[in-house]
Amino acid sequence: MKVGGTHYQTIWLQPDDPTIVQIIDQRRLPHEFVVLDLRTVAEVAHAIQAMIVRGAGLIGVTAAYGMYIAVLTAPKTTRRAFWDDVEAAGAQLKATRPTAVNLAWAVDRQLEALQQVEPLDEMVARARETALRIAAEDAENCRNIGTHGLQLIEALAERKPGETINILTHCNAGWLAFVDYGSATAPIYAAHDRGLPVHVWVDETRPRNQGARLTAWELGQHGVPHTVIADNVGGHLMQHGLVDLCIVGSDRTTVTGDVANKIGTYLKALAAHDNGVPFYVALPSSSFDWDMRDGLREIPIEQRGADEVKYMDGQTASGAIEVVRLTPESSPVANFGFDVTPARLVTGLITERGVVAADEDAILNLYPEKRRLASR
Amino acid sequence: MKVGGTHYQTIWLQPDDPTIVQIIDQRRLPHEFVVLDLRTVAEVAHAIQAMIVRGAGLIGVTAAYGMYIAVLTAPKTTRRAFWDDVEAAGAQLKATRPTAVNLAWAVDRQLEALQQVEPLDEMVARARETALRIAAEDAENCRNIGTHGLQLIEALAERKPGETINILTHCNAGWLAFVDYGSATAPIYAAHDRGLPVHVWVDETRPRNQGARLTAWELGQHGVPHTVIADNVGGHLMQHGLVDLCIVGSDRTTVTGDVANKIGTYLKALAAHDNGVPFYVALPSSSFDWDMRDGLREIPIEQRGADEVKYMDGQTASGAIEVVRLTPESSPVANFGFDVTPARLVTGLITERGVVAADEDAILNLYPEKRRLASR
Repeated sequence: MKVGGTHYQTIWLQPDDPTIVQIIDQRRLPHEFVVLDLRTVAEVAHAIQAMIVRGAGLIGVTAAYGMYIAVLTAPKTTRRAFWDDVEAAGAQLKATRPTAVNLAWAVDRQLEALQQVEPLDEMVARARETALRIAAEDAENCRNIGTHGLQLIEALAERKPGETINILTHCNAGWLAFVDYGSATAPIYAAHDRGLPVHVWVDETRPRNQGARLTAWELGQHGVPHTVIADNVGGHLMQHGLVDLCIVGSDRTTVTGDVANKIGTYLKALAAHDNGVPFYVALPSSSFDWDMRDGLREIPIEQRGADEVKYMDGQTASGAIEVVRLTPESSPVANFGFDVTPARLVTGLITERGVVAADEDAILNLYPEKRRLASR
Repeated sequence: MKVGGTHYQTIWLQPDDPTIVQIIDQRRLPHEFVVLDLRTVAEVAHAIQAMIVRGAGLIGVTAAYGMYIAVLTAPKTTRRAFWDDVEAAGAQLKATRPTAVNLAWAVDRQLEALQQVEPLDEMVARARETALRIAAEDAENCRNIGTHGLQLIEALAERKPGETINILTHCNAGWLAFVDYGSATAPIYAAHDRGLPVHVWVDETRPRNQGARLTAWELGQHGVPHTVIADNVGGHLMQHGLVDLCIVGSDRTTVTGDVANKIGTYLKALAAHDNGVPFYVALPSSSFDWDMRDGLREIPIEQRGADEVKYMDGQTASGAIEVVRLTPESSPVANFGFDVTPARLVTGLITERGVVAADEDAILNLYPEKRRLASR
């Protein structure tokens, strides 16, 4: 999507030296737009772990590029030495974040692709090709999510012609969370680009403020009308008819339709349910976990450091980035990164193949090739 | 309650010069403990409006002291001149914050008390006495809320002997929101002081962070175990059995049991309801609005400035208080201060007279003298 009029994706190979992976440093948005170079697996793992890149799709794609770097830097002397290195890199990348399923999916897909290659000197080309393909598919899937989700917005627009369609979203499931378009934002960008009068309520999304920092920034850069709100506000808005539709992303969705997403998503789903507001989850199929049936019991929930809650960084009047402490020095803090919204609160899933109910039969009818995986 | 071992209330007359009202500057907590002098009605109105003092009870008591200052400074030449001044002060104080009902209640009680006095030179004594009485009643009511609410916690403790009782609260309905003890915190302090193993989940409470700043600070000063969490977290905790009880305060409760409280309260009530967690609202009867039956339609919801969401202040590593901007400069912001939790989501109300169901019959049985006010 556009940044100051120029088209960007979130990750790419350096044009002059394609052994370098380049990313946008998302920790510094919205205040500064900085591009970083990644040259080693350790740097890639750090970028995912420290949330320099984040978002279900993008961490998968970054891991795919990380595997390409692993192959680039692995010894090509013996198959044993090569595979020891590459498999260790895969394990290191998978361990960076526990909740999102795309990470393991992308690493495993690289490993499978490499296993089909015999000569060690062809591994680099295969790994690069696979990373580029995973990135291209991510963008294409998001574009298709946009096309399918657009129909939901068009249906709402027909019911109140000329009036603004208010859409609430949580966290950043925007293009910054994928390669391009985003998942939850893809239908919004598609609607805006067609001239539909959409307006987005952007949940701030404490503690890391991905809504206030990233979603607000990317919507603003693309010219989509939006308003930032504290995470506490959505219920009040829904009680007063100020939300027509909720669309959020997902870090992992079980085959039964339970949705792990940024902490606080469940609270918004409850409010939507209580007020008859449609609550949709947009996700590419790489975010499905075909092996899980009970999201609440089975999906691991990441706990992150206390400092994300105790401290907040932002820009001072002089333009400097400064970190301030919000809490008493001695107060303990807990920081759960995700929660699980049970399928019963989800109106539907917007996937690259279409909109589907959040239940196992409907999901497997749309992805019949996954039936074998899901039948346990 | 205790601050660094010394007993404080939130508002008092300067011992050496009782024409001066003293308050704790709550904007500077938890980083600095600063006492401010109030000498004029304008200063009192500013203290309430700018949230130097805040909280349902305390803004009522502060307004009562404000009326005392109004009487002190009003001309005593003619009754007309006196009443013009005092009534203007009352209107000014009532207009500072729209949602809390205690404000109007305290101003009107001062006006009624003054109307019973004939000689103008006795007005000051009457106004001071009324302010002191309102403050003393506030503290006494909170103490009684603690006694009644303690029974709920004792009942939980009996069901899981020796185990920690986890209580979730939102915003600050602590002693800082009243004169002493607090409403939601009074049962917690009472339980802690009796040696019951309570632990409090403290909602950060964006945008003004009254939980992270004030509730965490006052619980810490009193030695009550607590953990600060982002507002997004409570639902997840309740899904996983980590909350035994929710207790929140109220800025206004209708005679039918609908509860206006800090924005986000409704979301926690929904999560409590969805997970079978008891959800109690603690309030002195001065927070009832005996004239209202439909909280969602009738209670005015304050909208505050965008800067509370766009900016955050805190303490830097060097100890300075600094303000940082969180959002993109050009992103619009909305800032609703309160929401309304419908009575159907409230397990019960903890009042100074006892615990009661959130419905009109039960409430009026506890406050039979209000039947006339409520019968419309």
